[in-house]
Order: sequence, then C-alpha cells, then structure tokens
Amino acid sequence: MEKHFLTPGKFKGLKRLSDETGRFRMLAIDQRGSLRKMLAKATGKDGKDITYNDMALAKWLVIEYLSPYFSATLTCPQYGLPEGIRFLDRDSALLLAIEESGTKDGGYKNREKLTKILEGWSVEKIKRAGADAVKLLLHYRPDSSDEIKEHQENIVKMVGEEAKRLDFPFVLEPMSFPYKDDEIENEVNFIRRKPEIVVKTVEEFSKEKYGVDILKLEFPVDLKFVDDFAYGAFDGKEREGVFTIDDAYEFCESITETSKVPWVILSAGVDIEEFLINVQIASESGASGFLAGRAVWKEFTQFFPNTSDMSLWLKTTGVERYYKLVDASSKAIPYFEHPSFQSLGNIRIEDEGENWFLKYKDFKGEKGKGKEKGKEEY
Amino acid sequence: MEKHFLTPGKFKGLKRLSDETGRFRMLAIDQRGSLRKMLAKATGKDGKDITYNDMALAKWLVIEYLSPYFSATLTCPQYGLPEGIRFLDRDSALLLAIEESGTKDGGYKNREKLTKILEGWSVEKIKRAGADAVKLLLHYRPDSSDEIKEHQENIVKMVGEEAKRLDFPFVLEPMSFPYKDDEIENEVNFIRRKPEIVVKTVEEFSKEKYGVDILKLEFPVDLKFVDDFAYGAFDGKEREGVFTIDDAYEFCESITETSKVPWVILSAGVDIEEFLINVQIASESGASGFLAGRAVWKEFTQFFPNTSDMSLWLKTTGVERYYKLVDASSKAIPYFEHPSFQSLGNIRIEDEGENWFLKYKDFKGEKGKGKEKGKEEY
Repeated sequence: MEKHFLTPGKFKGLKRLSDETGRFRMLAIDQRGSLRKMLAKATGKDGKDITYNDMALAKWLVIEYLSPYFSATLTCPQYGLPEGIRFLDRDSALLLAIEESGTKDGGYKNREKLTKILEGWSVEKIKRAGADAVKLLLHYRPDSSDEIKEHQENIVKMVGEEAKRLDFPFVLEPMSFPYKDDEIENEVNFIRRKPEIVVKTVEEFSKEKYGVDILKLEFPVDLKFVDDFAYGAFDGKEREGVFTIDDAYEFCESITETSKVPWVILSAGVDIEEFLINVQIASESGASGFLAGRAVWKEFTQFFPNTSDMSLWLKTTGVERYYKLVDASSKAIPYFEHPSFQSLGNIRIEDEGENWFLKYKDFKGEKGKGKEKGKEEY
Repeated sequence: MEKHFLTPGKFKGLKRLSDETGRFRMLAIDQRGSLRKMLAKATGKDGKDITYNDMALAKWLVIEYLSPYFSATLTCPQYGLPEGIRFLDRDSALLLAIEESGTKDGGYKNREKLTKILEGWSVEKIKRAGADAVKLLLHYRPDSSDEIKEHQENIVKMVGEEAKRLDFPFVLEPMSFPYKDDEIENEVNFIRRKPEIVVKTVEEFSKEKYGVDILKLEFPVDLKFVDDFAYGAFDGKEREGVFTIDDAYEFCESITETSKVPWVILSAGVDIEEFLINVQIASESGASGFLAGRAVWKEFTQFFPNTSDMSLWLKTTGVERYYKLVDASSKAIPYFEHPSFQSLGNIRIEDEGENWFLKYKDFKGEKGKGKEKGKEEY
C-alpha cells in the first residue's frame, strides 16, 4: 500500500485536534458578525452598540463551559484571545481564524465575495501564540468569474504555503453563496446547485498546491428541501421537496471520494435538530467529525447580559448538545482512516529515521548546521 | 496584589505541560548516553554496537506505554522523534531537548563541563515540529571559573531569547558536577556543597534575562547521606550521615523562596524508592511536580531486545510507578500558585484586551499590518 507522508508538526496537530479515537469533535466560537447580531437582538440594542467587552464575555463563557468537552476549540483573535487561553481546557486544542469577519463585494454585479486576511494578523502570529491550527473561511463558487476565483484561490495558496513553512495544520472552510440572477439564499434554484458546488469546491481545494489538511464543509443538501422534512419538520414552513435522504448520503459520499484530506461538517447556523441529522448522515458517509458552532450554543445569547443564566444554559443544554453530537457522529471515520491515509500504520513521517533532524527545516526553510546567530561558538 | 504577566504562547504551554490541576507530572526519555549504556549492558555489547534502531525502539516503547499517563513527555530529536509523534498520547504535551548529549571538558584542570547545542537543531525547529516546550540541560557550578560560567550562561540567554521570540516555554535543567581537587562524585565533600550549589544556581537562572519558565532541578540533598537513610537504606552501603531530613526540607524551601519560576524535581538516575522520597519532600516544600526519567523506566532495559517483555514491564511496573509518583507529589503546588504567580486569577496576559493582536509580534519581532509577502493585495 502506498504510504501517506505527513510532517511532524502537521501530524502532531491532527492528533491534537481530534479526540483519542481520531475523530474531530470541535467547537466553533469564532463568529463575529453573527454573534454581534445575536447580542444586539437579546438587548434590543443596535449592533454597533455591542461593545468589545460584550463580545469577549460571550466568547469566554462558551470557551470556559464547553471547551472541556470538545477535542478542539476555534475562536477569533479579536475577542476570543488572548484571555480565552485562560479559559480554554488543557485538553482542547486551539484553532484560530485568520480571516476578517465579513467579505468585500466584487465580481458579477458586485454580488460575489472577496475574502480578506485580518489586518495585523498572520499564520505566524497564530502559531506563535500557541495555537494548534489555522482556519480560513473562504467564500467560493467554482462556477464564478475567473478573476474572483483567482483572488480567492490565491489567498488559500498563501495560507497553505505559510502553514507548510511553519509545519502547522491548515483547516479550510469554503462557503458557497448565491450570486447568479436566478439565485436567492435558501431558495430552490440555489439549493439545487449546492451539492455540485460543494463537491467541485472540494475537488479544487484537494489539490496539493493549496496545502489544506482538513476541509470544514457545508452539508451539501439543505434538509428543509428533502422529501422527508419538506413539510416543515424543522421550522414549520412547508417547502418543495427537491432531494431525498438518499441524495444527501450520495452527495456526502461523493465528497469523501473527492476529498484528498479528512473532512468535517459545519453547522452554518442551522438549529441543533437539523444539524444532528447533518452530522449523522455526513458521519455515515465518510466525514471525520464536526466543527460545530451556532447549532451548539446560539440560544445561550438570549440571556445576555445575565452571565449566570448564560453559564447555566451552557453547562446544561450546551453540554447535552455535545453528547448528542458525539452520538450522531459515532460512525465518523478517524482522520487516519480517510481513504488517503488508510490507517495510522500507513502514515509515515517525512524524512523519518536517523538524522531526520538535520534534514528538517526551520522557519526560514533552512536546515541549519548550528549556524544561527551566535550559536556557532557553542 | 501585583499581577503576573505571561504571553499567550507561554501561558498556553504551561497549561499543556501541567495536568488539569496545574501540577507538572512529566516523563523524561531524552537520555542518550545513559540509555545506550543500559542497552549495551543488557546485551553484553559494546556501547558503540548499539544501533540507531535499538535506541529508537527503546524510546518509542517508553513513549507508547507511558505517555498516556504523564502530563508531558520529554524526548530527544535524535531517537525519540519524529516517529515518537506517532506513539505520543494526544493529551501528553511534548518537550524536546536542545542540547547535545554529553559535554566538552574545559576550565579548571579540564574538569569543568561545556554544553553544546545539538548541531542542526534549534528552538525554531522544536517549535516548528509541534512541540510544547524546549528543554536545555546545562552543567553549571555557580562557583566555577568566570570563563566557563560566561559560556554556559550565554547558552541559556541564547535559548531564552529564542524562546521569547517564539513565545515558547523554556525548561532549564541545571546540573551540578564535582570538579574541585577535593571533590569526588557521590562522596561527602561534594554532597555537602550541593545544597548551596543548587540554591545559588536557582538564584542565577531566576534572573529575567534568561527567560526561563520552569526550572528542572536536582534534589539538593543526597538522601543516602541523610541520617535516617545513611545505614544503607537504598543500596545496602553504609555512609556518613551529613544531613537530616529537616535539612532536606529546608533546602527545598529555600529553592522555592529563591526561584522566581515554578520548579520541578528530576530523578537523575536514582532508584524509584529514593526518588519517591525526593518527590514527596520537594512537593511538600513548594515544588510544582516532577520530570521523572530513569527512576521510572530504567529496569525495563534489562529485557532488551525482547520487545514484548519490555512492553510488559512498562505496562505494569512502569505504570504503577506513575501512580506512586502522583501520590508522592500530592502536595505539589500548581504552577499558578508559585509565589511569583500567586493564583490563576492573578495571571494576566501581556497586552490583553481590545486589539491585542495588533500589538502581538510575529517571529520576526514585527507587529505587521498585513504587509507580509503577497498579502497586501488581500
């Protein structure tokens, strides 16, 4: 069997991000714009009147009460860190977002989306701060204009190259969006196209040149448009049945076949009931777990700014949701059983064996021979 | 109360190296010269005939069977890594040694010892490979010649500066040695001087300029020369009683008072019975746990090269010793209760608060403004 090669830093990172069985059971609290809206709604305030302290408090509470359960916790540098380090459980790995929240409009009729790296932030700073991985949210349509695609793909390449230079795991989260004339968010035309968008996106970012280690993906099928649920199972609203449950399984399997790296499912703001089904279908189709955000915690914001009620919600309903997610993902495949890896025994480490450390590079890409500044004398 | 400031990477590292109570329960399998001797002895071979594979096998077995218990595992780059990453438990942090095994002779009658950084290895490579801390073993006598002291202190400064630049925890292990005309290893004159050597060494390396985060220290008093044990309690050999048990407590307390950083006790090849008493006295006197090496595993080498007997020994006696060490260290103080820190609530993070990430530096010491190569366009 062909061996799968990993570098030491990336391998160590994958082990840290996953639980002891090799499954990713990860928590996302890197939301900025959407969290601000929730806190504004809870207080009847305007989004702009939600302060730094408000945002930070909400994030720290989620990290404090939920990180002890999840194998890894994703947060943002603006509000989650650095104090989040104080609240993060020692056994939960740390992922940090690199992108700015929100996108710039561009491309076709100014409806396409351009990602921006957060100014003053970098993969280097993420690694330096002691995180275990970098995460990039990227709005992407494989069928969008070349100019926009190139811009977006270049960002992924840049982050991927940095992650490679730093021997650091890279989690890419491509996110589709409607922009064509006949597409409206959450409406049939767009929903119909989504499975193909997701699979083609996976195909693109599985290419080695991007250096992605884990794909964080949307569920390809909106369950609200699946025959069994279209009567309004999740929100009481009746819709057209566009897909069957079998379609959902097929598209997830198609992701697994297409992806050259382990993938996890994201929650994208759906309610927990719907997300649990997403997680189950994805896990039975080859996903390696989840990176769950709002579906886990969003309702706790309704108690803002009452911290004791917020905490209570997280300690009870929040924790219960973790266990439900573990159940739903029981069939998830360990990252090392992803088709590209096959098994833990099949993973080899680049340049392993005697004198590997002479071949291993530093951050400058140099092998070094004790020639660092002032070092030759020793 | 005066706040104690930590940087994000160092704080994250301290949390990872310690267990969930903040106590360091760490394992050392970074031995090179001494392990080679043990494997040679077990097989009746010459040290030089012990191969890379022999050394690596022994290290990987210790990592595989014991790292699931210890809060952190220290190994060497030459034999322990990179394959050790495959065997390291996800919840055990990784420390890597930076020094070459063995020292160069120098100074007074060529009896003093000069440390050398392992050629082709660096703090950068250690951080890049995904480790959680760098460890430097340093032979040191506060009463040795200025020339030798300067050389040794400069190495500590260099590693400390690199660790600071990389925001990475630095564990320093100063080790005394006899070199004066009237001193012989394990004999009275040297044993008598050791407590003062250890305390003065702690005083020196507590200075901020060295950037040390954890001191890994020798037990200041050789229990074989303590009244209660001098009849030959540990090895059947009768010796002169030079100290009392109370002296041992006092010297350990003196270390705690002198040290500006948390400290742990090392095992330095003593047998487990003696080491358990070291750990207990140190823990009751302000140490924050242990970094235990040969005392935990040395007897397993007698079964070399029979891997199944080696494994069996580690899974039974080795694991049992971990639990005995946990018992013996039950009074150890969490790192955040070390006098310099006082409590977890007293630890603040440098530049914490809004926009901290703009002030936080990258590896080049720059704050950056999205000015990295190719990044300005995004």
